[in-house]
Amino acid sequence: MIGIKSIASYVPTAGLDNYVQGAKFGKDEEFMFGKIGASFLPRKAEEQETSDLCVEAARALFANNPELDPQSIDVLIVVTQNGDEEGLPHTAAIVQNKLGLSTRVAAFDVSLGCSGYVYGLYAIKGFMQAAGLKNGLLITADPYSKIVDPEDRNTTMLFGDAATATWMGENAVWQLGEARFGTDGSGAEHLKVSDGTFFMNGRQVFNFALVKVPAHLHELLAASGLQSSDIDAFCIHQGSAAIVDAVARRFEEQHPEKFVKDMLETGNTVSSSVPLLLQKHMFDSSWKRVAISGFGVGLSWGSAILYRG
Amino acid sequence: MIGIKSIASYVPTAGLDNYVQGAKFGKDEEFMFGKIGASFLPRKAEEQETSDLCVEAARALFANNPELDPQSIDVLIVVTQNGDEEGLPHTAAIVQNKLGLSTRVAAFDVSLGCSGYVYGLYAIKGFMQAAGLKNGLLITADPYSKIVDPEDRNTTMLFGDAATATWMGENAVWQLGEARFGTDGSGAEHLKVSDGTFFMNGRQVFNFALVKVPAHLHELLAASGLQSSDIDAFCIHQGSAAIVDAVARRFEEQHPEKFVKDMLETGNTVSSSVPLLLQKHMFDSSWKRVAISGFGVGLSWGSAILYRG
Repeated sequence: MIGIKSIASYVPTAGLDNYVQGAKFGKDEEFMFGKIGASFLPRKAEEQETSDLCVEAARALFANNPELDPQSIDVLIVVTQNGDEEGLPHTAAIVQNKLGLSTRVAAFDVSLGCSGYVYGLYAIKGFMQAAGLKNGLLITADPYSKIVDPEDRNTTMLFGDAATATWMGENAVWQLGEARFGTDGSGAEHLKVSDGTFFMNGRQVFNFALVKVPAHLHELLAASGLQSSDIDAFCIHQGSAAIVDAVARRFEEQHPEKFVKDMLETGNTVSSSVPLLLQKHMFDSSWKRVAISGFGVGLSWGSAILYRG
Repeated sequence: MIGIKSIASYVPTAGLDNYVQGAKFGKDEEFMFGKIGASFLPRKAEEQETSDLCVEAARALFANNPELDPQSIDVLIVVTQNGDEEGLPHTAAIVQNKLGLSTRVAAFDVSLGCSGYVYGLYAIKGFMQAAGLKNGLLITADPYSKIVDPEDRNTTMLFGDAATATWMGENAVWQLGEARFGTDGSGAEHLKVSDGTFFMNGRQVFNFALVKVPAHLHELLAASGLQSSDIDAFCIHQGSAAIVDAVARRFEEQHPEKFVKDMLETGNTVSSSVPLLLQKHMFDSSWKRVAISGFGVGLSWGSAILYRG
């Protein structure tokens, strides 16, 4: 079965001291640590395009997996809503060229925000199965520094730039289990770009996450015939420290520490947040079963079980 | 097996007399008929958004298929590079809300141009299989009137606005066979948007189509163990009449009339061109096997065999 063979990432080393930024808006370090959850926000260089972040993450993946011949990649999906160009062409085509991949690759972008990695996993696995392909590259890169207004206190303290690359193929240690998805476009206005600038209604998004995500995770577990105790870790989108904590509480997890929180040096990296957690915490763990969940722009949400095959 | 159950479309009745437009650029009716291939170019109303075109196509699909309960749709993919908003949210979320679909739907956009329907078919079938979903809605809507400069003779005579909706599910008459895909981002610059305006290097795109598409179709047939004579019809992207004719010639089809040409009243409708042909010509035909091919922005191409199951 096609599953997750490896994950790598690119997180720019340059960025913003978020405590300094918080002070500008009258927020102390306790608030920045406990509520926002990020002391540092990585920022791409001005001249770095979204495709360049993708290329860095993919190169890290190739370096970590010398047995993966880049020429054997036959499908490439880029999850982004902030690609290189104005709508067209798609960023995946630009990445194909910059990486020097074969022209026999199926390449397209999936337009989703913070829920994108969960959808992307099933989209790429499904596409590979439906089209008979062998080696997939699922890339996330949604640099919000392109669209965030540095004077907007609702957004500028939250988002960090990053990219991840996931190798999908046969004989993978981690397999995809049950998944559930959801969309509510009536809330689209709460997260959107107008005239090039990102707007977020933080209260509405927080409420949405609290109403939807814990219930969605419970529904996923029930559909999978699993109890909360069967899950070794919950790797959910790192919207903010406050959101992760509140979802864990509302889920009534007896061991809230199973909700992994690791965004201090990255902030909210949109569709890269879940794969960053998996890369850092899943592969070297003794975990057998992980629940993932992404939620945000759309509004859109998706949750899934990953398990050792 | 999940296949194509039904296709419907929305083509605006308003639009441009393309003979009048051609005359403005010194092109006679013979040229407009024989080379461009369109005497009329449908145009959405100024106030119609991309999502509105999607909604019209989906409503036509629901009207044609009363046995399909809209509430049973569990995945919705919109293929577009000219969505409603600036990158985010995705148009599929807006369509979910406008159609009043269940919030339990998995909805996302696939960013591809003229190759998009071929990719979209395998993306939605694969996603449905990987996630255990039952009723898929694959929508194409890429209204180039948003980006085409009416003074640009290379593009303004070619493109028409349209949308299509395809119902994917079990017990379908038409099944997906072998498929082949390709991407060459080194040619991305030949079709792109800059400062809100679409640019096309027509000569390069024509050459690309002639070099890639006939060879790709031959490769697909060989991979499928089929001869050209086993294919009842070739429904390829209607880039222009000249492109369809030239691809048929270069393919060395003994019966070039098997390359369906039907764009006189629509023009090049980007990712909607192939499903418009299938809707109009495949379902009431005696055809047993059809080859489809889409090619364009990226550069990107995809070809597949459809067969009666």
